[in-house]
Amino acid sequence: MTEPGTTPTTATVPPEQRAVEDALVAEVVASFDGTPDPRLRTVMRSLTRHLHAFIRDVRLTEEEWNTAIEFLTAVGHITDDTRQEFILLSDVLGASMQTIAVNNRAYRSATEATVFGPFFVDDAPRIPLGGDIAGGAVGEPCWVEGTVTDIDGEPVPGARIEVWECDEDGHYDVQYADGRVGGRAHLYTDAEGRYRFWGLTPVPYPIPHDGPVGALLAAVRRSPMRASHLHFMVAAENLRTLVTHIFVAGDDLLARDSVFGVKDSLVKDFVRQPADSPTPGGRDLGGIAWSRVRFDIVLAPAGI
Amino acid sequence: MTEPGTTPTTATVPPEQRAVEDALVAEVVASFDGTPDPRLRTVMRSLTRHLHAFIRDVRLTEEEWNTAIEFLTAVGHITDDTRQEFILLSDVLGASMQTIAVNNRAYRSATEATVFGPFFVDDAPRIPLGGDIAGGAVGEPCWVEGTVTDIDGEPVPGARIEVWECDEDGHYDVQYADGRVGGRAHLYTDAEGRYRFWGLTPVPYPIPHDGPVGALLAAVRRSPMRASHLHFMVAAENLRTLVTHIFVAGDDLLARDSVFGVKDSLVKDFVRQPADSPTPGGRDLGGIAWSRVRFDIVLAPAGI
Repeated sequence: MTEPGTTPTTATVPPEQRAVEDALVAEVVASFDGTPDPRLRTVMRSLTRHLHAFIRDVRLTEEEWNTAIEFLTAVGHITDDTRQEFILLSDVLGASMQTIAVNNRAYRSATEATVFGPFFVDDAPRIPLGGDIAGGAVGEPCWVEGTVTDIDGEPVPGARIEVWECDEDGHYDVQYADGRVGGRAHLYTDAEGRYRFWGLTPVPYPIPHDGPVGALLAAVRRSPMRASHLHFMVAAENLRTLVTHIFVAGDDLLARDSVFGVKDSLVKDFVRQPADSPTPGGRDLGGIAWSRVRFDIVLAPAGI
Repeated sequence: MTEPGTTPTTATVPPEQRAVEDALVAEVVASFDGTPDPRLRTVMRSLTRHLHAFIRDVRLTEEEWNTAIEFLTAVGHITDDTRQEFILLSDVLGASMQTIAVNNRAYRSATEATVFGPFFVDDAPRIPLGGDIAGGAVGEPCWVEGTVTDIDGEPVPGARIEVWECDEDGHYDVQYADGRVGGRAHLYTDAEGRYRFWGLTPVPYPIPHDGPVGALLAAVRRSPMRASHLHFMVAAENLRTLVTHIFVAGDDLLARDSVFGVKDSLVKDFVRQPADSPTPGGRDLGGIAWSRVRFDIVLAPAGI
């Protein structure tokens, strides 16, 4: 039995015991030798090695193993067509973000990717350049503009930009039961690779935290809050599709985003504009304050 | 993207990309710094390190991540009060057996432990020395005898021995819907630490394989069969409780037990006895063949 608070490792285990544990790992790894799909064979062997290394490193007790089985069972039972607790679990362990990182290799000046999230919807309305994505979603207006270029700085005309975000109450349209569509749209860059639209100033919101993953976050004293953000997906021919967010400089959640989505390069100045200040395109905002932000996007070549 | 069949590692990843991935691991590990329970903190940090190392080592694709989420969801949804697919998953990955190994350290001549399994029941009937555990369970009779000693060879009188096994159809009593109790009992060693009873010659059976874990086993071309075995749990004051099986020498499943429960030291000669050969205690078996096996049990001190 391991004393609470200690960090035992296999290094403290007597050689004869270590040999028993090593032999078991080898036996399980070898059990995948006959797997016809070479990629599945590779994945299962690696999963075995890392899973066993975890059990051995922490000297997992039988009681803890039971707790893990019960936790996973609860995660499975709360998951249904509209609630995906396994994705939340992957998110809060940083596994989703690490998968994104592995598949969107850092490449020269290319804009960094971050988590996709569960709230993207195909077929969001198309808006013209300078149009409004709100579609009735309530929040402070925010002017968003920038360019899409390749890593040589060449403009990318006709790039398809999908944007989506929550309203001022922290809810995406799909979280309402009334079928509304708002806070999402797509548009295309102009001949000089420029884009611009009206969105909403992003606000923070919690991931669903009334289930087992929420209980885990509470036990480790972590917040379920996501830092305020605006989602982008940018696609253009011969370039790597970018899935990312921009975050709001000064948001005190930046350092503790519950799903580890924040990258320094994605934190932008959302500059508050006084009420009644002139707006791009002369839009009449009825005298309320608004914000503006610039986000220049650099796409890596496809196949990187 | 990783080519099928290759075994990429983080060693082939460029330094700037490796730095991004390292930083994410460090950030997730640090997110557990405020965990009040030091043991939970240790476990979550280690889990994070090993989970991220797995994702990075195999360069997990986003499609594979999706497959993993769908697989775990299916495991969760088939699990109910009578079917525990997460335990099956742990079993076929050797995680259950590794947890047993970690918690039942090899110690001198002490008999090795193996998986507990889901079929133990409290309050099995008590039988006298030489009694029959069958209770109506059908199968070839098997005489089992041996001693319980400590590691110095001193007999352990009054040790409580629980035994349980499946019938000749590969089913435990609890797998029938009629509430029967058979193929299980408990007894106590005599003043010289000896025990003996009639059981059934063990037969092989498959773990439940009509769910996602069965599909995984099929994809990796592994059998769901368990090697033939007889379960023991042996408890005595001041000695470590032993949970183990004995296996049948010559069983061709020994090398591919689906849950990795086999230890060489637990493989015993079940010696076939011709029909009409004299039986221990002169029991009348109606002229059928039977078998006999000897299993001498050595218990480690408690607290090892």
